[in-house]
Amino acid sequence: MPIRACIFDVFGSLVDWRGSVARHVAEVAARHGVSLDPIAVATDWRGEYQTGMERVRAGAGGYVPLEILHLENLDRVLDRHGLSAAFDASARAELNQAWERLTPWSDVPEGLAMVRETHLVAPCSNGSIAMMIRLAQFGGLQWDAIVGADIAQDYKPKPEVYRASARALGLAPAEVMMVAAHNDDLAAARAAGLATGFFPRVTEHGPAQTTDLTAERDWDVIASDLKDFAKRLG
Amino acid sequence: MPIRACIFDVFGSLVDWRGSVARHVAEVAARHGVSLDPIAVATDWRGEYQTGMERVRAGAGGYVPLEILHLENLDRVLDRHGLSAAFDASARAELNQAWERLTPWSDVPEGLAMVRETHLVAPCSNGSIAMMIRLAQFGGLQWDAIVGADIAQDYKPKPEVYRASARALGLAPAEVMMVAAHNDDLAAARAAGLATGFFPRVTEHGPAQTTDLTAERDWDVIASDLKDFAKRLG
Repeated sequence: MPIRACIFDVFGSLVDWRGSVARHVAEVAARHGVSLDPIAVATDWRGEYQTGMERVRAGAGGYVPLEILHLENLDRVLDRHGLSAAFDASARAELNQAWERLTPWSDVPEGLAMVRETHLVAPCSNGSIAMMIRLAQFGGLQWDAIVGADIAQDYKPKPEVYRASARALGLAPAEVMMVAAHNDDLAAARAAGLATGFFPRVTEHGPAQTTDLTAERDWDVIASDLKDFAKRLG
Repeated sequence: MPIRACIFDVFGSLVDWRGSVARHVAEVAARHGVSLDPIAVATDWRGEYQTGMERVRAGAGGYVPLEILHLENLDRVLDRHGLSAAFDASARAELNQAWERLTPWSDVPEGLAMVRETHLVAPCSNGSIAMMIRLAQFGGLQWDAIVGADIAQDYKPKPEVYRASARALGLAPAEVMMVAAHNDDLAAARAAGLATGFFPRVTEHGPAQTTDLTAERDWDVIASDLKDFAKRLG
Protein backbone atom coordinates (compact mmCIF):
# COMPACT_ATOMS: atom_id res chain seq x y z
CA MET A 1 0.00 0.00 0.00
CA PRO A 2 1.45 3.38 -0.92
CA ILE A 3 2.08 5.82 1.92
CA ARG A 4 -0.30 8.80 1.64
CA ALA A 5 0.48 10.64 4.88
CA CYS A 6 3.40 11.14 7.25
CA ILE A 7 2.44 11.86 10.84
CA PHE A 8 5.14 13.21 13.11
CA ASP A 9 6.17 13.02 16.69
CA VAL A 10 6.85 16.62 17.68
CA PHE A 11 8.58 17.07 21.07
CA GLY A 12 12.18 16.05 20.48
CA SER A 13 11.65 14.83 16.92
CA LEU A 14 10.74 18.15 15.27
CA VAL A 15 11.44 20.70 17.99
CA ASP A 16 14.13 21.21 20.62
CA TRP A 17 12.02 21.23 23.81
CA ARG A 18 15.03 21.21 26.18
CA GLY A 19 16.81 24.28 24.87
CA SER A 20 13.57 26.13 24.15
CA VAL A 21 11.91 25.51 27.51
CA ALA A 22 15.12 26.45 29.32
CA ARG A 23 15.34 29.69 27.35
CA HIS A 24 11.71 30.60 28.05
CA VAL A 25 11.99 29.70 31.75
CA ALA A 26 15.15 31.84 32.03
CA GLU A 27 13.36 34.80 30.41
CA VAL A 28 10.29 34.56 32.65
CA ALA A 29 12.45 34.06 35.75
CA ALA A 30 14.53 37.11 34.89
CA ARG A 31 11.37 39.17 34.40
CA HIS A 32 10.19 38.12 37.86
CA GLY A 33 13.62 38.58 39.46
CA VAL A 34 13.93 34.88 40.29
CA SER A 35 17.22 32.99 40.17
CA LEU A 36 17.11 29.36 39.00
CA ASP A 37 18.87 26.75 36.85
CA PRO A 38 16.84 26.83 33.62
CA ILE A 39 18.21 23.59 32.13
CA ALA A 40 17.52 21.71 35.38
CA VAL A 41 13.96 23.09 35.52
CA ALA A 42 13.34 22.20 31.86
CA THR A 43 14.72 18.68 32.30
CA ASP A 44 12.81 18.03 35.52
CA TRP A 45 9.63 19.42 33.97
CA ARG A 46 9.92 17.03 31.03
CA GLY A 47 10.81 14.30 33.53
CA GLU A 48 7.28 14.60 34.94
CA TYR A 49 5.86 14.09 31.44
CA GLN A 50 4.56 10.54 31.89
CA THR A 51 2.89 10.96 35.31
CA GLY A 52 -0.32 12.72 34.30
CA MET A 53 -0.50 10.94 30.94
CA GLU A 54 -0.33 7.58 32.69
CA ARG A 55 -3.43 8.54 34.69
CA VAL A 56 -5.29 9.32 31.45
CA ARG A 57 -4.04 6.14 29.75
CA ALA A 58 -5.33 4.14 32.70
CA GLY A 59 -8.75 5.67 32.07
CA ALA A 60 -8.93 7.49 35.41
CA GLY A 61 -10.86 10.75 35.20
CA GLY A 62 -11.08 11.04 31.42
CA TYR A 63 -8.85 12.87 28.95
CA VAL A 64 -6.99 15.96 30.13
CA PRO A 65 -5.00 17.88 27.48
CA LEU A 66 -1.25 18.16 27.86
CA GLU A 67 -1.15 21.89 28.63
CA ILE A 68 -3.16 21.20 31.81
CA LEU A 69 -0.88 18.29 32.76
CA HIS A 70 2.17 20.51 32.14
CA LEU A 71 0.75 23.09 34.54
CA GLU A 72 0.15 20.44 37.22
CA ASN A 73 3.65 19.04 36.68
CA LEU A 74 5.13 22.52 36.99
CA ASP A 75 3.81 22.78 40.56
CA ARG A 76 5.79 19.69 41.53
CA VAL A 77 8.93 20.86 39.75
CA LEU A 78 8.90 24.31 41.35
CA ASP A 79 8.32 22.66 44.74
CA ARG A 80 11.37 20.46 44.24
CA HIS A 81 13.51 23.48 43.29
CA GLY A 82 12.31 25.43 46.34
CA LEU A 83 10.54 27.89 44.04
CA SER A 84 6.93 27.41 45.18
CA ALA A 85 6.66 30.98 46.45
CA ALA A 86 8.51 32.51 43.50
CA PHE A 87 5.76 32.22 40.85
CA ASP A 88 2.06 32.95 41.34
CA ALA A 89 -0.70 31.45 39.15
CA SER A 90 -0.30 34.07 36.43
CA ALA A 91 3.50 33.61 36.33
CA ARG A 92 3.01 29.83 36.15
CA ALA A 93 0.68 30.30 33.16
CA GLU A 94 3.41 32.44 31.61
CA LEU A 95 6.00 29.69 32.25
CA ASN A 96 3.62 27.13 30.74
CA GLN A 97 3.67 28.97 27.41
CA ALA A 98 7.19 27.58 27.04
CA TRP A 99 5.62 24.52 25.42
CA GLU A 100 4.07 26.61 22.64
CA ARG A 101 7.38 28.28 21.80
CA LEU A 102 9.67 25.44 20.90
CA THR A 103 12.28 26.04 18.23
CA PRO A 104 12.31 23.50 15.37
CA TRP A 105 15.58 21.71 14.69
CA SER A 106 17.28 23.50 11.80
CA ASP A 107 16.40 20.90 9.14
CA VAL A 108 12.68 20.85 10.02
CA PRO A 109 10.97 23.76 8.23
CA GLU A 110 12.52 22.83 4.87
CA GLY A 111 12.30 19.07 5.47
CA LEU A 112 8.62 19.23 6.40
CA ALA A 113 7.84 21.31 3.31
CA MET A 114 9.70 18.73 1.19
CA VAL A 115 7.59 15.87 2.60
CA ARG A 116 4.44 17.95 2.11
CA GLU A 117 5.06 18.19 -1.64
CA THR A 118 4.10 14.53 -2.00
CA HIS A 119 2.37 13.47 1.24
CA LEU A 120 -0.16 14.74 3.74
CA VAL A 121 1.68 16.06 6.79
CA ALA A 122 0.25 16.16 10.31
CA PRO A 123 1.62 16.09 13.84
CA CYS A 124 0.74 12.98 15.87
CA SER A 125 1.82 14.32 19.22
CA ASN A 126 0.69 13.98 22.80
CA GLY A 127 0.36 17.77 22.66
CA SER A 128 -3.09 19.18 21.99
CA ILE A 129 -4.45 20.74 18.81
CA ALA A 130 -4.12 24.16 20.49
CA MET A 131 -0.44 23.50 21.21
CA MET A 132 0.25 22.24 17.70
CA ILE A 133 -1.34 25.34 16.13
CA ARG A 134 0.86 27.63 18.20
CA LEU A 135 4.01 25.57 17.61
CA ALA A 136 3.36 25.78 13.88
CA GLN A 137 2.96 29.56 14.08
CA PHE A 138 6.06 29.96 16.26
CA GLY A 139 8.24 27.68 14.12
CA GLY A 140 6.90 28.56 10.68
CA LEU A 141 5.61 25.04 10.04
CA GLN A 142 2.59 24.04 8.00
CA TRP A 143 0.32 21.06 8.72
CA ASP A 144 -2.48 19.67 6.52
CA ALA A 145 -4.32 18.60 9.67
CA ILE A 146 -3.59 18.00 13.34
CA VAL A 147 -4.07 14.51 14.71
CA GLY A 148 -2.77 12.79 17.85
CA ALA A 149 -3.89 12.82 21.48
CA ASP A 150 -6.78 15.32 21.19
CA ILE A 151 -8.31 13.34 18.31
CA ALA A 152 -8.07 10.06 20.19
CA GLN A 153 -8.75 11.56 23.64
CA ASP A 154 -5.91 9.39 24.88
CA TYR A 155 -2.11 9.36 24.88
CA LYS A 156 0.58 7.61 22.85
CA PRO A 157 1.83 4.93 22.91
CA LYS A 158 -1.70 3.51 23.20
CA PRO A 159 -2.55 1.90 19.83
CA GLU A 160 -5.85 3.78 19.49
CA VAL A 161 -3.99 7.09 19.16
CA TYR A 162 -2.20 5.91 15.99
CA ARG A 163 -5.32 4.22 14.61
CA ALA A 164 -7.65 7.14 15.35
CA SER A 165 -5.11 9.46 13.71
CA ALA A 166 -5.07 7.40 10.50
CA ARG A 167 -8.88 7.21 10.55
CA ALA A 168 -9.17 10.99 10.97
CA LEU A 169 -7.05 11.39 7.84
CA GLY A 170 -9.43 9.07 5.99
CA LEU A 171 -6.67 6.49 5.53
CA ALA A 172 -5.90 2.90 6.51
CA PRO A 173 -3.11 2.50 9.10
CA ALA A 174 -0.85 0.97 6.42
CA GLU A 175 -1.19 4.13 4.29
CA VAL A 176 0.24 6.25 7.11
CA MET A 177 3.87 6.49 8.24
CA MET A 178 4.62 7.48 11.83
CA VAL A 179 7.89 9.44 11.87
CA ALA A 180 9.82 9.95 15.09
CA ALA A 181 13.24 10.14 16.69
CA HIS A 182 12.04 7.70 19.38
CA ASN A 183 12.20 3.94 18.90
CA ASP A 184 9.40 3.22 21.41
CA ASP A 185 6.96 5.52 19.59
CA LEU A 186 7.69 3.68 16.34
CA ALA A 187 7.36 0.24 17.95
CA ALA A 188 3.88 1.19 19.16
CA ALA A 189 2.95 2.65 15.76
CA ARG A 190 4.13 -0.51 13.96
CA ALA A 191 2.13 -2.68 16.36
CA ALA A 192 -0.92 -0.56 15.44
CA GLY A 193 -0.35 -1.27 11.74
CA LEU A 194 1.38 1.94 10.62
CA ALA A 195 4.57 2.27 8.57
CA THR A 196 7.55 3.77 10.42
CA GLY A 197 10.25 6.34 9.73
CA PHE A 198 13.19 7.22 11.97
CA PHE A 199 15.89 9.84 12.24
CA PRO A 200 17.92 10.45 15.41
CA ARG A 201 18.05 13.59 17.56
CA VAL A 202 21.22 12.86 19.48
CA THR A 203 21.13 15.99 21.65
CA GLU A 204 17.41 16.08 22.49
CA HIS A 205 18.33 15.34 26.12
CA GLY A 206 21.60 17.26 26.01
CA PRO A 207 25.19 16.39 25.13
CA ALA A 208 25.31 13.26 27.33
CA GLN A 209 22.27 11.56 25.77
CA THR A 210 22.41 7.76 25.78
CA THR A 211 18.98 6.80 24.36
CA ASP A 212 17.59 6.73 20.81
CA LEU A 213 20.99 7.44 19.27
CA THR A 214 20.25 4.99 16.44
CA ALA A 215 17.41 3.00 14.89
CA GLU A 216 16.96 -0.08 17.08
CA ARG A 217 14.81 -1.97 14.56
CA ASP A 218 14.36 -2.24 10.81
CA TRP A 219 12.08 0.79 10.50
CA ASP A 220 10.70 1.28 6.98
CA VAL A 221 12.72 4.45 6.43
CA ILE A 222 15.86 5.27 8.42
CA ALA A 223 17.43 8.67 7.80
CA SER A 224 19.93 11.08 9.32
CA ASP A 225 17.50 13.99 9.67
CA LEU A 226 14.18 15.21 8.25
CA LYS A 227 15.62 16.50 4.96
CA ASP A 228 17.36 13.15 4.44
CA PHE A 229 14.08 11.42 5.38
CA ALA A 230 12.19 13.44 2.74
CA LYS A 231 14.71 12.39 0.07
CA ARG A 232 14.56 8.71 1.02
CA LEU A 233 10.73 8.77 1.19
CA GLY A 234 10.49 10.37 -2.27
CA MET B 1 -12.51 40.27 24.00
CA PRO B 2 -10.44 40.41 20.81
CA ILE B 3 -11.23 37.82 18.13
CA ARG B 4 -8.28 35.42 17.75
CA ALA B 5 -9.74 32.89 15.31
CA CYS B 6 -12.28 32.76 12.51
CA ILE B 7 -13.95 29.41 11.98
CA PHE B 8 -15.82 28.88 8.75
CA ASP B 9 -18.83 27.07 7.51
CA VAL B 10 -17.66 25.34 4.33
CA PHE B 11 -20.45 23.84 2.19
CA GLY B 12 -22.12 26.79 0.50
CA SER B 13 -20.18 29.46 2.41
CA LEU B 14 -16.69 28.75 1.03
CA VAL B 15 -17.34 26.23 -1.75
CA ASP B 16 -19.97 25.79 -4.44
CA TRP B 17 -21.28 22.31 -3.62
CA ARG B 18 -24.18 22.45 -6.12
CA GLY B 19 -22.18 23.21 -9.25
CA SER B 20 -19.24 21.04 -8.16
CA VAL B 21 -21.25 17.95 -7.22
CA ALA B 22 -23.27 18.23 -10.43
CA ARG B 23 -20.05 18.43 -12.47
CA HIS B 24 -18.50 15.42 -10.73
CA VAL B 25 -21.71 13.38 -11.00
CA ALA B 26 -21.93 14.21 -14.72
CA GLU B 27 -18.32 13.10 -15.25
CA VAL B 28 -18.74 9.82 -13.38
CA ALA B 29 -22.08 9.14 -15.12
CA ALA B 30 -20.53 9.76 -18.52
CA ARG B 31 -17.65 7.41 -17.69
CA HIS B 32 -20.19 4.71 -16.79
CA GLY B 33 -22.43 5.47 -19.79
CA VAL B 34 -25.33 6.53 -17.58
CA SER B 35 -27.72 9.32 -18.49
CA LEU B 36 -29.03 11.50 -15.66
CA ASP B 37 -29.82 15.10 -14.65
CA PRO B 38 -26.70 16.11 -12.70
CA ILE B 39 -28.16 19.25 -11.10
CA ALA B 40 -31.23 17.33 -9.92
CA VAL B 41 -29.05 14.56 -8.46
CA ALA B 42 -26.79 17.11 -6.72
CA THR B 43 -29.76 19.01 -5.29
CA ASP B 44 -31.57 15.89 -4.12
CA TRP B 45 -28.38 14.52 -2.60
CA ARG B 46 -27.88 17.70 -0.59
CA GLY B 47 -31.60 17.58 0.25
CA GLU B 48 -30.94 14.37 2.19
CA TYR B 49 -28.24 16.18 4.19
CA GLN B 50 -30.15 16.51 7.48
CA THR B 51 -31.55 12.96 7.70
CA GLY B 52 -28.48 11.07 8.87
CA MET B 53 -27.15 13.99 10.88
CA GLU B 54 -30.44 14.21 12.77
CA ARG B 55 -29.97 10.59 13.86
CA VAL B 56 -26.49 11.44 15.21
CA ARG B 57 -27.72 14.62 16.90
CA ALA B 58 -30.42 12.60 18.63
CA GLY B 59 -27.66 10.39 20.03
CA ALA B 60 -28.82 7.23 18.25
CA GLY B 61 -25.94 4.94 17.36
CA GLY B 62 -23.07 7.33 18.02
CA TYR B 63 -21.19 9.64 15.66
CA VAL B 64 -20.92 8.70 12.00
CA PRO B 65 -18.78 10.96 9.78
CA LEU B 66 -20.43 12.81 6.93
CA GLU B 67 -18.78 10.85 4.10
CA ILE B 68 -20.55 7.72 5.38
CA LEU B 69 -23.88 9.56 5.66
CA HIS B 70 -23.39 10.91 2.13
CA LEU B 71 -22.93 7.37 0.84
CA GLU B 72 -26.11 6.20 2.62
CA ASN B 73 -27.99 9.23 1.27
CA LEU B 74 -26.77 8.50 -2.24
CA ASP B 75 -28.53 5.12 -2.19
CA ARG B 76 -31.86 6.85 -1.57
CA VAL B 77 -31.22 9.50 -4.23
CA LEU B 78 -30.26 6.98 -6.92
CA ASP B 79 -33.35 4.94 -6.01
CA ARG B 80 -35.55 7.98 -6.48
CA HIS B 81 -33.99 8.70 -9.88
CA GLY B 82 -34.45 5.09 -11.00
CA LEU B 83 -30.66 4.67 -11.06
CA SER B 84 -30.24 1.91 -8.45
CA ALA B 85 -28.90 -0.55 -11.00
CA ALA B 86 -26.70 1.99 -12.79
CA PHE B 87 -23.92 2.31 -10.18
CA ASP B 88 -22.29 -0.51 -8.22
CA ALA B 89 -20.53 -0.03 -4.86
CA SER B 90 -17.27 1.06 -6.45
CA ALA B 91 -19.04 3.58 -8.74
CA ARG B 92 -20.95 4.91 -5.73
CA ALA B 93 -17.65 5.43 -3.87
CA GLU B 94 -16.43 7.29 -6.95
CA LEU B 95 -19.58 9.48 -6.94
CA ASN B 96 -19.07 10.13 -3.22
CA GLN B 97 -15.70 11.75 -3.92
CA ALA B 98 -17.74 14.66 -5.31
CA TRP B 99 -17.80 16.09 -1.78
CA GLU B 100 -14.00 16.26 -1.65
CA ARG B 101 -13.79 18.14 -4.96
CA LEU B 102 -15.80 21.27 -4.38
CA THR B 103 -14.68 24.45 -6.11
CA PRO B 104 -14.22 27.47 -3.81
CA TRP B 105 -16.17 30.61 -4.69
CA SER B 106 -13.81 32.92 -6.59
CA ASP B 107 -13.16 35.29 -3.63
CA VAL B 108 -12.26 32.49 -1.21
CA PRO B 109 -8.58 31.56 -1.72
CA GLU B 110 -7.46 35.20 -1.51
CA GLY B 111 -10.02 36.14 1.16
CA LEU B 112 -9.05 33.25 3.41
CA ALA B 113 -5.36 34.11 3.07
CA MET B 114 -6.19 37.73 4.01
CA VAL B 115 -7.99 36.63 7.19
CA ARG B 116 -5.12 34.27 8.00
CA GLU B 117 -2.65 37.16 8.11
CA THR B 118 -4.19 38.30 11.40
CA HIS B 119 -6.34 35.43 12.72
CA LEU B 120 -6.25 31.67 13.12
CA VAL B 121 -8.33 30.10 10.35
CA ALA B 122 -10.13 26.76 10.60
CA PRO B 123 -13.16 25.13 9.04
CA CYS B 124 -16.06 24.43 11.43
CA SER B 125 -18.02 22.19 9.12
CA ASN B 126 -20.22 19.16 9.46
CA GLY B 127 -17.75 17.57 7.07
CA SER B 128 -15.01 15.40 8.58
CA ILE B 129 -11.32 16.20 9.03
CA ALA B 130 -10.58 13.85 6.11
CA MET B 131 -12.99 15.80 3.87
CA MET B 132 -11.60 19.17 4.96
CA ILE B 133 -8.02 18.09 4.18
CA ARG B 134 -9.01 17.05 0.67
CA LEU B 135 -11.12 20.14 0.05
CA ALA B 136 -8.15 22.28 1.05
CA GLN B 137 -5.88 20.39 -1.34
CA PHE B 138 -8.42 20.57 -4.16
CA GLY B 139 -9.20 24.26 -3.67
CA GLY B 140 -5.73 25.51 -2.71
CA LEU B 141 -6.86 26.58 0.75
CA GLN B 142 -4.79 26.61 3.93
CA TRP B 143 -6.14 25.96 7.44
CA ASP B 144 -4.30 26.38 10.75
CA ALA B 145 -6.35 23.51 12.18
CA ILE B 146 -9.53 21.61 11.39
CA VAL B 147 -12.36 21.77 13.91
CA GLY B 148 -16.09 21.03 13.61
CA ALA B 149 -18.11 17.83 13.68
CA ASP B 150 -15.24 15.31 13.98
CA ILE B 151 -13.80 17.19 16.96
CA ALA B 152 -17.14 17.34 18.74
CA GLN B 153 -18.35 13.93 17.52
CA ASP B 154 -21.67 15.62 16.83
CA TYR B 155 -23.24 17.89 14.23
CA LYS B 156 -24.00 21.61 13.97
CA PRO B 157 -26.15 23.37 14.96
CA LYS B 158 -25.73 21.64 18.35
CA PRO B 159 -24.02 24.13 20.69
CA GLU B 160 -21.31 21.66 21.73
CA VAL B 161 -19.87 21.67 18.18
CA TYR B 162 -19.14 25.42 18.38
CA ARG B 163 -17.89 25.21 21.96
CA ALA B 164 -15.71 22.14 21.40
CA SER B 165 -14.24 23.86 18.33
CA ALA B 166 -13.26 26.96 20.34
CA ARG B 167 -11.85 24.73 23.10
CA ALA B 168 -9.76 22.75 20.60
CA LEU B 169 -8.24 26.04 19.43
CA GLY B 170 -7.36 26.85 23.06
CA LEU B 171 -9.73 29.84 23.04
CA ALA B 172 -12.85 31.05 24.83
CA PRO B 173 -16.02 31.04 22.67
CA ALA B 174 -16.03 34.87 22.70
CA GLU B 175 -12.53 34.90 21.14
CA VAL B 176 -13.79 32.94 18.12
CA MET B 177 -15.94 34.20 15.24
CA MET B 178 -18.15 31.76 13.35
CA VAL B 179 -18.34 32.89 9.73
CA ALA B 180 -21.08 31.59 7.43
CA ALA B 181 -23.48 32.43 4.63
CA HIS B 182 -26.27 30.80 6.66
CA ASN B 183 -28.24 32.73 9.26
CA ASP B 184 -29.26 29.61 11.23
CA ASP B 185 -25.62 28.52 11.63
CA LEU B 186 -24.78 31.95 13.05
CA ALA B 187 -27.80 31.99 15.37
CA ALA B 188 -26.63 28.71 16.88
CA ALA B 189 -23.03 29.95 17.15
CA ARG B 190 -24.16 33.16 18.85
CA ALA B 191 -26.28 31.17 21.32
CA ALA B 192 -23.13 29.15 22.11
CA GLY B 193 -21.21 32.35 22.91
CA LEU B 194 -19.25 32.89 19.69
CA ALA B 195 -18.96 36.09 17.66
CA THR B 196 -20.57 35.96 14.20
CA GLY B 197 -19.68 37.03 10.66
CA PHE B 198 -21.92 36.86 7.59
CA PHE B 199 -21.67 37.24 3.85
CA PRO B 200 -24.32 35.98 1.42
CA ARG B 201 -24.01 33.33 -1.27
CA VAL B 202 -27.06 34.15 -3.30
CA THR B 203 -26.66 31.32 -5.84
CA GLU B 204 -25.66 28.50 -3.49
CA HIS B 205 -28.98 26.80 -4.29
CA GLY B 206 -29.12 28.07 -7.87
CA PRO B 207 -30.51 31.16 -9.58
CA ALA B 208 -33.94 30.95 -7.89
CA GLN B 209 -32.60 30.90 -4.32
CA THR B 210 -34.94 32.50 -1.75
CA THR B 211 -33.12 31.83 1.56
CA ASP B 212 -30.13 33.52 3.24
CA LEU B 213 -30.05 36.32 0.68
CA THR B 214 -29.25 38.84 3.43
CA ALA B 215 -28.19 39.02 7.07
CA GLU B 216 -31.34 38.44 9.12
CA ARG B 217 -29.84 39.68 12.40
CA ASP B 218 -27.22 42.14 13.62
CA TRP B 219 -24.26 39.79 13.14
CA ASP B 220 -20.97 41.24 14.41
CA VAL B 221 -19.54 41.55 10.90
CA ILE B 222 -21.73 41.71 7.79
CA ALA B 223 -19.94 41.73 4.44
CA SER B 224 -20.58 41.20 0.75
CA ASP B 225 -18.10 38.34 0.31
CA LEU B 226 -15.01 36.87 2.02
CA LYS B 227 -12.57 39.52 0.76
CA ASP B 228 -14.92 42.25 1.99
CA PHE B 229 -15.25 40.33 5.28
CA ALA B 230 -11.45 40.23 5.68
CA LYS B 231 -11.26 44.02 5.19
CA ARG B 232 -14.05 44.73 7.69
CA LEU B 233 -12.55 42.31 10.24
CA GLY B 234 -9.11 43.94 9.97
